[in-house]
Amino acid sequence: MASSEDIILSAVLNLLSAFAFLVAFAILRLQPINDRVYFSKWYLKGIRASPRSSGTFVKKFVNLDCRTYIRFLNWMPAALRMPEPELIDHAGLDSAVYIRIYLLGLKIFVPLALLSFAVLVPVNWSGKSLEQTEGLTFSTIDKLSISNVPDASKKFWAHLVMAYVVTFWTCYILYKEYHIITTMRLQFLASENRRPDQFTVLVRNVPPDPDESVCEHVEHFFCVNHPDHYLTHQVVYNANNLAKLVEKKKSYKNWLTYYQTKYERNPKIKPKTKTGVWGLWGKTVDAIDYYTTEIEKLSKEETIEREKVMSDPKAIVPAAFVSFKSRWGAAVCAQTQQSSNPTIWLTQWAPEPRDVYWNNLSIPFVELNVRKLLMTVAFFFLTFFFMIPIAFVQSLASIDGIENKLPVLRPLIQMEVVKSFIQGVLPGIILKIFLVLLPMILMAMSKIEGYTSLSSLDRRSATKYHFFILVNVFLGSIITGAAFEQLQRFVDEPPSEIPKTVGVAMPLKATFFITYIMVDGWAGIAAEILRLVPFVMFHLKNTFLVKTDQDREQATDPGSLNFSVSEPRIQLYFLLGLVYSVVTPILLPFIIVFFAFSYMVFRHQIINVYDQKYESGASFWPDVHRRILTGLVISQLLLLGLLSTKNISKSTPVMIALPVLTIWFHIFCKGRYESAFVKFPLQDAMVKDTLERATEPTLNLKAYLKDAYVHPVFKGVELDRPSAVDDEENNPLVPTKRSRRSSKSHSEEGV
Amino acid sequence: MASSEDIILSAVLNLLSAFAFLVAFAILRLQPINDRVYFSKWYLKGIRASPRSSGTFVKKFVNLDCRTYIRFLNWMPAALRMPEPELIDHAGLDSAVYIRIYLLGLKIFVPLALLSFAVLVPVNWSGKSLEQTEGLTFSTIDKLSISNVPDASKKFWAHLVMAYVVTFWTCYILYKEYHIITTMRLQFLASENRRPDQFTVLVRNVPPDPDESVCEHVEHFFCVNHPDHYLTHQVVYNANNLAKLVEKKKSYKNWLTYYQTKYERNPKIKPKTKTGVWGLWGKTVDAIDYYTTEIEKLSKEETIEREKVMSDPKAIVPAAFVSFKSRWGAAVCAQTQQSSNPTIWLTQWAPEPRDVYWNNLSIPFVELNVRKLLMTVAFFFLTFFFMIPIAFVQSLASIDGIENKLPVLRPLIQMEVVKSFIQGVLPGIILKIFLVLLPMILMAMSKIEGYTSLSSLDRRSATKYHFFILVNVFLGSIITGAAFEQLQRFVDEPPSEIPKTVGVAMPLKATFFITYIMVDGWAGIAAEILRLVPFVMFHLKNTFLVKTDQDREQATDPGSLNFSVSEPRIQLYFLLGLVYSVVTPILLPFIIVFFAFSYMVFRHQIINVYDQKYESGASFWPDVHRRILTGLVISQLLLLGLLSTKNISKSTPVMIALPVLTIWFHIFCKGRYESAFVKFPLQDAMVKDTLERATEPTLNLKAYLKDAYVHPVFKGVELDRPSAVDDEENNPLVPTKRSRRSSKSHSEEGV
Repeated sequence: MASSEDIILSAVLNLLSAFAFLVAFAILRLQPINDRVYFSKWYLKGIRASPRSSGTFVKKFVNLDCRTYIRFLNWMPAALRMPEPELIDHAGLDSAVYIRIYLLGLKIFVPLALLSFAVLVPVNWSGKSLEQTEGLTFSTIDKLSISNVPDASKKFWAHLVMAYVVTFWTCYILYKEYHIITTMRLQFLASENRRPDQFTVLVRNVPPDPDESVCEHVEHFFCVNHPDHYLTHQVVYNANNLAKLVEKKKSYKNWLTYYQTKYERNPKIKPKTKTGVWGLWGKTVDAIDYYTTEIEKLSKEETIEREKVMSDPKAIVPAAFVSFKSRWGAAVCAQTQQSSNPTIWLTQWAPEPRDVYWNNLSIPFVELNVRKLLMTVAFFFLTFFFMIPIAFVQSLASIDGIENKLPVLRPLIQMEVVKSFIQGVLPGIILKIFLVLLPMILMAMSKIEGYTSLSSLDRRSATKYHFFILVNVFLGSIITGAAFEQLQRFVDEPPSEIPKTVGVAMPLKATFFITYIMVDGWAGIAAEILRLVPFVMFHLKNTFLVKTDQDREQATDPGSLNFSVSEPRIQLYFLLGLVYSVVTPILLPFIIVFFAFSYMVFRHQIINVYDQKYESGASFWPDVHRRILTGLVISQLLLLGLLSTKNISKSTPVMIALPVLTIWFHIFCKGRYESAFVKFPLQDAMVKDTLERATEPTLNLKAYLKDAYVHPVFKGVELDRPSAVDDEENNPLVPTKRSRRSSKSHSEEGV
Repeated sequence: MASSEDIILSAVLNLLSAFAFLVAFAILRLQPINDRVYFSKWYLKGIRASPRSSGTFVKKFVNLDCRTYIRFLNWMPAALRMPEPELIDHAGLDSAVYIRIYLLGLKIFVPLALLSFAVLVPVNWSGKSLEQTEGLTFSTIDKLSISNVPDASKKFWAHLVMAYVVTFWTCYILYKEYHIITTMRLQFLASENRRPDQFTVLVRNVPPDPDESVCEHVEHFFCVNHPDHYLTHQVVYNANNLAKLVEKKKSYKNWLTYYQTKYERNPKIKPKTKTGVWGLWGKTVDAIDYYTTEIEKLSKEETIEREKVMSDPKAIVPAAFVSFKSRWGAAVCAQTQQSSNPTIWLTQWAPEPRDVYWNNLSIPFVELNVRKLLMTVAFFFLTFFFMIPIAFVQSLASIDGIENKLPVLRPLIQMEVVKSFIQGVLPGIILKIFLVLLPMILMAMSKIEGYTSLSSLDRRSATKYHFFILVNVFLGSIITGAAFEQLQRFVDEPPSEIPKTVGVAMPLKATFFITYIMVDGWAGIAAEILRLVPFVMFHLKNTFLVKTDQDREQATDPGSLNFSVSEPRIQLYFLLGLVYSVVTPILLPFIIVFFAFSYMVFRHQIINVYDQKYESGASFWPDVHRRILTGLVISQLLLLGLLSTKNISKSTPVMIALPVLTIWFHIFCKGRYESAFVKFPLQDAMVKDTLERATEPTLNLKAYLKDAYVHPVFKGVELDRPSAVDDEENNPLVPTKRSRRSSKSHSEEGV
């Protein structure tokens, strides 16, 4: 068990490393050469011009103005300065609500920390149970925890009352926050400009018809069943091959531009290239000629494939984006059942064009169910048994394992340095690699499950990751042992024993979690603001790969809030805060620092750096709300288990009411607010429709919607960059995944 | 443990009692005097005239035709003769589907029984484990059960395979049945004539408006938000007081008619009555004068109250029945969210007028949630702790208890007969009274929970009752002890132990359950066909109370399928069959007899006797399906527990797949079929609308819907009798709870 000195040392170390990250950030961000890394959002918005275009040669790369270095923390107040409505305008509702999660942490834990320090810390301190027990080593932190209160003491009533206060305060704040965010979402939706998804419904599982094509079938069905509201529709093509060709052609074009530029600069040498992979081997040919012919060849292939996709009825998947004359019509169609067979003509709100996950639009009902079953079983095994394959790989990667499998490497392995590396570091690295890959594995599983929008994929992955963290980080740290051993224990122990086992072990782990918060939370967040990976990648690309100006733009990876990974991690802090608020209140300040620091860092990032891939209108909030309540219930059950070992009569009946009330509160909130995140009320639709009819009576909606839901490959050549979030504010025609520039030019034709 | 001789004896006794009931039924039903009891359905339909109106005096009461007695079982083939479509026409879809539950039992268990007898019985018999264990008493039944197979025997693979067969066969049959019943329901809905509920949506939680009355507010809201579809609406009055007055006046009118008839028959004596309760005490007055004045007085009061209700805005509850111009419009409104606040303007399909539970139409959202929480907690305590108050009452009803509380009764209690009655019978009677009252308690709880239709109240009560039976009858019989002791065990034992404890005890209880099936199932069903209580009540009323012809009609209580009580009881038999099909297959024939016999009895009853209070279109089927699958999962878990004690390696992994697959199957079926029971697809609505527009272009829908959803007190005087099921077939205007005759007369004005 770590002593309080260890904790202080660790705190100092982590504070220092966090400070070092911050200083590094402050210095790096002021260099013009890094401007695109640390202000990428502004570049995307077209507001910021490169500072490198003016000034002397040196000034283009290094900032020599000393005064700017003095105020090296001034990004913090700057990050806080932008008011929320402007923030929503600037970065979208998703981002604005996301950082409110950190604010929510502060709202919950600051008052609780104050109260705990005022009440529980003195109560625990005066318990003196640890001092009276002989032969026990304990730290100051333990003296401030519930362990210090002797069995059967009346003082536990303070903890019981505190548990009630924690529950009611958390629920109160959550309720208020749910209300605020619902209001924000509704206002956001109401104030939005015209967008194609407001008029469009995604129809899946169009049944096959022997006499009609999918296109005709959809048209006839909606003409008959929504006669006054149906406007048009867009079928979905299976364009995977075409997308590959387009991608390849694009890459070749870049190379062509690169060699042409090179040739122009130095017309003496005709640039050469090799025909093999990445131009590294193969026959040496004239580069410009080679790429010109290749592009021509690809253009022909592309035209053929494009015609094939457009004309081949088999390339049309049984799904369509059906658009209506009014938002009211779309809202009706999205919320109702169309056919008496609920597995065909499935309707749902169309995700916004950028948000569509095209590959999953055509999965039949039965297959979807089988996929979900398989993924549930797979996820169960992944969560509880992931250590088994990891241990197997680790054993393979041992000295003996490698010697057996690859005798060739024996002389190499015999070297002392290699040997110690393999023995000491490799197993840890293998585990770390798995943990880094985990979110991708979970995302792949969610994709297999068949969700049709990127936002729902993110939410689904987050749910899985949250469960994984809960089992393997939280429970795994408290009850040591692999997850499948825990599972065995859970099955073999009485349900009343589990909260006891975990609850009793819980206070002892407080110091571990404090260290965890400092390493993962404090230093981790400081590292986030430095953006080390995009920073290095940008400079590498800039030096070695960037050939054209357009490439430089693409070399900047603005990144985005990775909801599926970072939200479950925040939830761990909520869980820790709720669990330890009654047991070891000394942990709360560390969590508060985490929330406050993260809030500032992420507010800065969403203002200056991140570029969201889609805008879902904070539709993740119900998940956040539910997970915090899950944490609350876990904390209540663990405290119940802990107190039941302390010989306090009646603690169990007093405590059992809390989870019941919390679950009821969850059901209540779900009924009260959740529908605002999944449905679109007719009243609001009608208001917007009426307003629009009054202001723009001559609008040609059909023309406006014509290309909104066309598969990205049919739209243009530049597929990589989704358009910036703000575009939709200015531009009613939000294009799917086309470059910002092309959408801009379009917006001029637009309204 | 009962020996096989005991079982045979019990079987013989129960068969005899069932036979006696059947003979009694055969004799009683042939007597003309009982005609109204045993053929009440036909009277209600107006097809059967009283046989007493013709023939000699004796023949009016007793059937003297000996030939009819010989064929005393001929009701059985007669009951089976009516084809299903005619049955649906005659008794409604609810009843027709209800008896299919019994048929489903046969479909599941007959093949399983054949297979079990062919495979498992020989396997068990050849086990010879019981014979080899010394000092063990066992019966022939035990020798045929799984207990006879020695530990770690390879023979258990037969049971494992059989468990898979049971699961897949049950799921297959359930899937087919769900499909059939969904089709039946859709056909039923599609073939229905015009009904008010097809056009109507129940809107609850109309928000208060300072400037408008509820009526205006509803009208404006729907005119704005469903401009093309809104037709009209009907506000709901809080007419409880008025209903009481109307009821009272009706009773007085009956008395008046009675005394008038009496006076006409015997003009010499002016009939007298007393002014007190039931005419038993108080001042003696002239009966006819008294009732005439009283009725006049009540009429005035009623008029005042009626005007008050109609004019007082406070008497209008914030709910309304909103009707639309088309089924499509109603389907849209019922399935969509109206306002961005999901707790106001709640819409749902209007129940058919007879099915409305008027008292619950105006419960605010928060109150509804609180009520549900309270009822959930109350139901939990009722299920697990009901024995505590019962034991308390039983202790009060003991000799000492009564002597202490009511010393006056001491001499009475000292009598030997009374004493032995109190000691021997009273505690059992108290428990029995509770069990008889239980369905009413559960129904009252469901009413408090705020359901708005009788059918949903029935379904909700059935869910509660099913859980109660599961805990207190099934588990309570296997693990003896009160429910709260079991609860304690469940909390204190590891989850892996529970299936073991129950699973091991399970084979030992087979004989008990066989006896239970014979007493509760065989004899109970035979008693059902005799209709002893309505029979006695009819003759008592007929002799002492019936004053008018109308009274005689009302004295007949046709009864109805009591879904909330009888469905959970059937589920117990499904559960027993599934649990014992692998463990003790000898139980299956008893269950098959139960299902076959019940099927015939209830088919006879729904044809000849019962009169359904409402028609919900088999909307209970998803519940039935879910509960059978619950039983299947329970049977799998118990078998898993049982086999895990038998030292068979790998039995647990093999068995654990079954519940996972079963739960997945449930989710699959839910997705595939459930929406047919809760939603109304737009396509079907559109088809009916189009058809109607073509056939009846001049229909005045507004006039047709005008009075459909008026509170029954505003419709007429006769409130007691809901109209018969078949009326809606002939009569598009289904009246709410008004007498059949008045609705008949209406139907002539109708179409």
